Amino acid sequence: MKKLGIIGGLGPMATAYFMRRIIEMTDAPTDQDNIEMVIFNTPSIPDRTGFILGNSTESPLPKIVELAHKLERENVDYIAMPCITAHFFHDQIADSVFVPVSNGIRETADYLAERGIKRVGIMATDGTKSMHLFDSVFKDYDITCIYPDNECQKLVMSIIYDDIKAGRKVAMKEFELIKNQLLEMGAEVILLGCTELSIVKRDHNIGDKVLDVIDVLAQDCVKKCAKLRPEYEELITK
Amino acid sequence: MKKLGIIGGLGPMATAYFMRRIIEMTDAPTDQDNIEMVIFNTPSIPDRTGFILGNSTESPLPKIVELAHKLERENVDYIAMPCITAHFFHDQIADSVFVPVSNGIRETADYLAERGIKRVGIMATDGTKSMHLFDSVFKDYDITCIYPDNECQKLVMSIIYDDIKAGRKVAMKEFELIKNQLLEMGAEVILLGCTELSIVKRDHNIGDKVLDVIDVLAQDCVKKCAKLRPEYEELITK
Repeated sequence: MKKLGIIGGLGPMATAYFMRRIIEMTDAPTDQDNIEMVIFNTPSIPDRTGFILGNSTESPLPKIVELAHKLERENVDYIAMPCITAHFFHDQIADSVFVPVSNGIRETADYLAERGIKRVGIMATDGTKSMHLFDSVFKDYDITCIYPDNECQKLVMSIIYDDIKAGRKVAMKEFELIKNQLLEMGAEVILLGCTELSIVKRDHNIGDKVLDVIDVLAQDCVKKCAKLRPEYEELITK
Repeated sequence: MKKLGIIGGLGPMATAYFMRRIIEMTDAPTDQDNIEMVIFNTPSIPDRTGFILGNSTESPLPKIVELAHKLERENVDYIAMPCITAHFFHDQIADSVFVPVSNGIRETADYLAERGIKRVGIMATDGTKSMHLFDSVFKDYDITCIYPDNECQKLVMSIIYDDIKAGRKVAMKEFELIKNQLLEMGAEVILLGCTELSIVKRDHNIGDKVLDVIDVLAQDCVKKCAKLRPEYEELITK
């Protein structure tokens, strides 16, 4: 049995849900068949989008690298970071440790490419969007990224920061507005490209054609560390 | 802001739900206002009930104490263990570290006593029941513990081990049968006295008069480490 290290707290609720999805996806009849995890839930890490967009000078990277080092000292076999915006620093984090670090963006591209999907509607933070975190990888797979218009992108940010991070109820009408806009723009699948948005899926029926990056990350971790329950091979909602 | 250490994996899903409840109960408008946590999710720890009842010679205590020491080295301010059966070892664990260790059984007694409750129906493992973990503390508060009859106690164990720990759907008819029996025996409140049973509450409407030990534990941790959202002062379902 392998040991998983989690750089968490970005945000905390996404981390708790990530943990839940890993447990749900693991083929484990008893406690003792589950994956051992070390989780540093460190919400004090500075905001990723704030730094990437230049609204804050405090980089989250030093603290994240410190946690990666701590996880390495705990002898974990694999490291995951359930925060897509923080994947802006993925290569720097991966280069700082010997333990492999899951790349949620590349795993998502692989997942979509294996299913022949070519046009993806993306809900993500302004940081992820403006730094082209998905686009720069997806182009190698001939997958086109479609983003909401400025008005709807503001709604995405509001769901992430004003609703989920603040512990408030999600405005589902707004979520549906964004989803429908992306579908009308030709998206075959809608990607919940920010781990906070997974909480919308946890608490509501979000309809079909949705892929949640937290599920892709959790599936990758389970496959690397234990045995996947077969019903979690397919992750796009139907 | 204080740092919380969690001895987890007993079982893993209860640990993930415990983390979620702590986050939900924390009055935090941004990520950075949340409690920092270090979680050792170590499901390989031997089964508690198995050892307590003498069905296994492998004690879970050495591994639990090792985790408590590791958490102490991480400079946590408070340690919690979301597993009631493991509270059999509470004093030995607390004596092994300088950091205070939350006592879920004593916290529950305080919670019930403050509300003048005198008769509590308890759903817990055979280990917790046979070692009188609740009774031995509750008697100092003049609170009477009521347990299901042997037939219904078997159903409690089946829900914990065959359903929740195995990742299967919970048999709600059986849950209601147990709850009704305890109410008929004069219980004013039903205590979910095993953290695995919290998953029943997470996924189903379990009706009124139920107190979940995980909520008591989470409330205690939030009060010790941050600020509680006022709506989580009252934990008994209505």
